[in-house]
Amino acid sequence: MSDDLMKKIVSLCKRRGFVYQSSEIYGGLKSAYDYGPLGVEMKRNLMNAWWRDMVHAREDVVGLDASVIMHPKVWEASGHLSGFSDPLVDCKVCKERFRADKAPTGDEGSDAVLSFPDKGAAKVALASIEKQFGQVLERKGKALHGAKFGACGYACPNCGSPFLSDERQFNLMFKSSLGPTDPMGAVTSAIENGDFEGLSGRELKAKVEGLLKPSAVYLRPETAQGMFVQFVNIQQSMSMKVPFGIAQMGKSFRNEVTTEHFIFRSCEFEQMEMEFFCEPGTDDHWLDYWKDARLEWWKRYSNDPSKFILRAHEPDELAHYAKGCYDIEYDYPWGYGELEGIANRTDYDLKKHAQHSGQKLEYFDPTERKRYTPYVIEPAAGATRGVLVFLIDAYTEEEVETPRGPETRVVLKLHPELAPIKVAVFPLIKKNGMPELARKVVEQFFKRGIAAKYDEQHAIGKRYRRHDEIGTPWCLTIDADSLEDGTITIRDRDTMEQRRIAIDDAVSEIEQLLRGGRG
Amino acid sequence: MSDDLMKKIVSLCKRRGFVYQSSEIYGGLKSAYDYGPLGVEMKRNLMNAWWRDMVHAREDVVGLDASVIMHPKVWEASGHLSGFSDPLVDCKVCKERFRADKAPTGDEGSDAVLSFPDKGAAKVALASIEKQFGQVLERKGKALHGAKFGACGYACPNCGSPFLSDERQFNLMFKSSLGPTDPMGAVTSAIENGDFEGLSGRELKAKVEGLLKPSAVYLRPETAQGMFVQFVNIQQSMSMKVPFGIAQMGKSFRNEVTTEHFIFRSCEFEQMEMEFFCEPGTDDHWLDYWKDARLEWWKRYSNDPSKFILRAHEPDELAHYAKGCYDIEYDYPWGYGELEGIANRTDYDLKKHAQHSGQKLEYFDPTERKRYTPYVIEPAAGATRGVLVFLIDAYTEEEVETPRGPETRVVLKLHPELAPIKVAVFPLIKKNGMPELARKVVEQFFKRGIAAKYDEQHAIGKRYRRHDEIGTPWCLTIDADSLEDGTITIRDRDTMEQRRIAIDDAVSEIEQLLRGGRG
Repeated sequence: MSDDLMKKIVSLCKRRGFVYQSSEIYGGLKSAYDYGPLGVEMKRNLMNAWWRDMVHAREDVVGLDASVIMHPKVWEASGHLSGFSDPLVDCKVCKERFRADKAPTGDEGSDAVLSFPDKGAAKVALASIEKQFGQVLERKGKALHGAKFGACGYACPNCGSPFLSDERQFNLMFKSSLGPTDPMGAVTSAIENGDFEGLSGRELKAKVEGLLKPSAVYLRPETAQGMFVQFVNIQQSMSMKVPFGIAQMGKSFRNEVTTEHFIFRSCEFEQMEMEFFCEPGTDDHWLDYWKDARLEWWKRYSNDPSKFILRAHEPDELAHYAKGCYDIEYDYPWGYGELEGIANRTDYDLKKHAQHSGQKLEYFDPTERKRYTPYVIEPAAGATRGVLVFLIDAYTEEEVETPRGPETRVVLKLHPELAPIKVAVFPLIKKNGMPELARKVVEQFFKRGIAAKYDEQHAIGKRYRRHDEIGTPWCLTIDADSLEDGTITIRDRDTMEQRRIAIDDAVSEIEQLLRGGRG
Repeated sequence: MSDDLMKKIVSLCKRRGFVYQSSEIYGGLKSAYDYGPLGVEMKRNLMNAWWRDMVHAREDVVGLDASVIMHPKVWEASGHLSGFSDPLVDCKVCKERFRADKAPTGDEGSDAVLSFPDKGAAKVALASIEKQFGQVLERKGKALHGAKFGACGYACPNCGSPFLSDERQFNLMFKSSLGPTDPMGAVTSAIENGDFEGLSGRELKAKVEGLLKPSAVYLRPETAQGMFVQFVNIQQSMSMKVPFGIAQMGKSFRNEVTTEHFIFRSCEFEQMEMEFFCEPGTDDHWLDYWKDARLEWWKRYSNDPSKFILRAHEPDELAHYAKGCYDIEYDYPWGYGELEGIANRTDYDLKKHAQHSGQKLEYFDPTERKRYTPYVIEPAAGATRGVLVFLIDAYTEEEVETPRGPETRVVLKLHPELAPIKVAVFPLIKKNGMPELARKVVEQFFKRGIAAKYDEQHAIGKRYRRHDEIGTPWCLTIDADSLEDGTITIRDRDTMEQRRIAIDDAVSEIEQLLRGGRG
């Protein structure tokens, strides 16, 4: 059922121009997605709403757009270079490489059953295990019995084997090289000169690292560090007084080992993050404030607000720098999962950057005449994940009566603010001056900057269904009466009710409806 | 003078929160810039205006937001892997690495004078040249005489030396690695196994390349390829009929050897590109159409439209795939330079991707019942470059009379649509209920989504100057009369004229002014 729902959404996304697989014609890149004509509008609508509510509608928050490639020392100071990694393991039977912390578990010494796609594969695995480990398992069809879970307590997620390599840490940051040198040039020269001869494996690796380091740069794995690094510049140039926040939206990149659930986890994704700087001692209050404000915000755009919950992190779950943290979770088709985290990061980041840069990253309070390092509350949301949440929230199938009998209509019940197209304008038929008048109407919307679409393809019922499926809240239809009496039919997506309004009022009517949120 | 103007703009940008150097506290990354609270608003305003006019206000253009990391085969097909490179040269005297095509030139055999920061450096260079090339030059103070330009016809841009390495091609794409493997692991294993022994330099390089290739990915150096790769998906899911366009805005990355003129050329930058697909034979018409439309668009936001010019590319200047191309150039302080290019790319890209992917990238015309590969007209603009152009366009110094005598006021005469803050609201003094009333007024603007700022710091004259300097078109001041008669002073940034309006009309007045463009 839940699988079924995701399949329907993925299919609708491709068929209707919301989301395509990246580089699909080349077989695709499973790590990334492209937002098509409707998807880019929906993503922009969501992110613009966040920006308006977090930056424009507040006196105490300003924006930032920092570069994706930052100085490598930023990632040394933030701890990402040493600590932002997943534990990876290789299966010695099927060669799968997987994350230890996501693998199926079992008690040490308990039975581990291996299973394969077919008997042949099971036979090959049986022979390989005997050859590698001298252990003979019993084959029953496609499965192998007789193996036991080891001390690590997990097995291969692909074949179930407990014959595994040791864990090793794999850093998730994408690494590149900046500057007019090919970083591999130094390595190949060193090979030619025999510089690596006689080195141990560990020494060799360190020497190679050392040669690459001078030009090494990383793609940011989060936008947050930009706000810490520019804290003083922004506080001073904007004369901001603590408490205040710095907000940023934009792309982040993580070389995820496991990408999953469509756009839920991908290597390239978009974030909406805000760092709110406050006086130590007021941080508990602000954590409280922001967790409520952010939950409220997500619910405002939802058809089913009960699916959004706050979950406080257990003390043993907190990051080492965090004093407290809440996750806003959503009830995805596969269960609850994170959508936004609101963390009390204390003064950890500013102090780390002060230490590594040798710069003072403090605030001078002109009223109290005291200097301190602010604490930071961080509401960090996934923007692309937000798009997925509202696609799931909006997807609806309804039985409707038609002259041809009952039919299923698919409706995306998107909040009008998120809908890619706000209003569609149809001529009932493609003649008798109707197209000309409909085009005049749609032009009025273009002029007011309202995303509108003129559509004359297929019968009127089919056009309604098409716009239901992409979430267009209102359709306007020009018919024969329109030419006589200057009225137009307005149809509501959710109720399917139709009423007539004056053509001259069409723009202000839609503006009114948009301002009111749901019709 | 022009240097002076750029210095003033760079300084204003940092001081007022428009643009900071990336990672400044770590000594900065010269290749990238961070857009501060005002810069991010101005950039968003410019890009939103482009999106509105190119996508929302047109029936024939739809949007796209493709991933930065695309399948590596995209760059093989597009020619970027083999051809997107700069010719690099090393100076054998001062060790500068530079672009051959940007170096100062001289005829072969003509005098090349070397010059250094001081006598000491000149002496060291003199000795080095004698040692390396056996050539004795004559030192006059900080300069060395007697060298001649070589056959390549250029000299080092740093010291003027004609003692240079051969040119080599340096690919400008940032390279990274995708997937759960450390690409260097294969290289270090190969070193350990002695796999490189006995190889020539060329063979060694090829073998290392081969080991890195399976996981190699690149950051896009332009957004355009996303539109070609998704052409069929978009045409079909949106039922688009040729002619139509696909527009995309976003970051691109080029490992530029020469970054220059502040945000004019940086490694990380933002583009606004559109690919307009049309029937072969109509391409000349559409090139003409788009070159005019785009020039018109830029001029609309400028105080001095005469500084924008169209320049047709000479036949020998055209890219190999282009049939015709115009540059929209702006008269920067250092001379004319590119802002946008409008190229007729023919069917080159679609055909290349069809060939490399094995997919049909064609259009079936349902009316004419024929199938063909469309031609493409591409208006490709620099968004971050556009921000620079309008900062230069807006920067003004004026002599004004004040009670303290004549003063110079700095005004950013930005088009109101581009201005980061549309309206500032001041209480004349910080008491007698004025702050409370001013806050009520500013809240009204927040509610309408108009970027407004409440400001009570310093004397009123200083506040006007501060908002002149950041381009705020209108300031509203609450004074004692406001509390009596419900009126407010509105001041125009450019004319400095003040008039009184009803407080209740403040929002609609500003909305009216914004809609009208320049006050």
